[in-house]
Amino acid sequence: MRTAFHLTSGDEDHQKTVLTIAENLSNDETIEMDDIAVVAQAEGIAPFKKDGTHSDTVEELLDAGIEFRACSNTLDMMDLDDSDLVEGVETVSSGASELTRLQDDGWAYLRP
Amino acid sequence: MRTAFHLTSGDEDHQKTVLTIAENLSNDETIEMDDIAVVAQAEGIAPFKKDGTHSDTVEELLDAGIEFRACSNTLDMMDLDDSDLVEGVETVSSGASELTRLQDDGWAYLRP
Amino acid sequence: MRTAFHLTSGDEDHQKTVLTIAENLSNDETIEMDDIAVVAQAEGIAPFKKDGTHSDTVEELLDAGIEFRACSNTLDMMDLDDSDLVEGVETVSSGASELTRLQDDGWAYLRP
Repeated sequence: MRTAFHLTSGDEDHQKTVLTIAENLSNDETIEMDDIAVVAQAEGIAPFKKDGTHSDTVEELLDAGIEFRACSNTLDMMDLDDSDLVEGVETVSSGASELTRLQDDGWAYLRP
Repeated sequence: MRTAFHLTSGDEDHQKTVLTIAENLSNDETIEMDDIAVVAQAEGIAPFKKDGTHSDTVEELLDAGIEFRACSNTLDMMDLDDSDLVEGVETVSSGASELTRLQDDGWAYLRP
Repeated sequence: MRTAFHLTSGDEDHQKTVLTIAENLSNDETIEMDDIAVVAQAEGIAPFKKDGTHSDTVEELLDAGIEFRACSNTLDMMDLDDSDLVEGVETVSSGASELTRLQDDGWAYLRP
């Protein structure tokens, strides 16, 4: 199965919760996950930045096979580019279009 | 494709973020959107009111073809009726039933 | 139709809103609901506890046929077990896997 997490909040505790829930899902032996992605936009993009508060967790989860996708609109608005993001984070045209496409393609949607 | 946004928060910054994300989706040239709707209930209904903080944005997005649907339960609870809402906002029996029907009908669900 | 609510917030007002929206959905005569479930994890699990702020509402909604499912990861992390929860609340391996399975099975997802 495939699940996309939507991360939009600037609250650091909430960001950590979303990352923990994604990690727990990848470790849950009662379900076979083919893909887990975290799609961030607005203030939720902070942990994807190289100097972000939870960027070390993002790096660990990338190593564990979880995907991270950043909204290009948000990057433009915050004057950021690929080089500001943790290596391995992908960019998508917009968070909303990405999550629309994923759901249309059968992915579950979770917004903790 | 079709996407419904769920707006329930009373936080004005969050309300603005939801409206901006909906607008960005309608402008995203990488996806062909047939319908975009914002379904509001509880405190999230504030921008749909004629005197709401972001009601001007709601008017602009209505002109751009985005649909707005207000939960009747919420209107009853807040002692509001159609005449208190920005012209063009529709009412639905409940936000939850509307979003259940839309997802059942293949719409993607986004709760920024 | 079938709808799963996702409850993760520790905010007591928000918790109450989620329970009210679930109740309103079960009472909405414009839609025939076969199942309504509230899946809680992280701080959202509080109302499921016997001594939780809104546990009386959870008891009422259980009587009304709404299902409640608690994330086992969260219970472990908070050092809680079944006996700490309102009678009738089920436990699931993880909130995220449960909500992935439910969506894969055609349930709508709501995160007020």
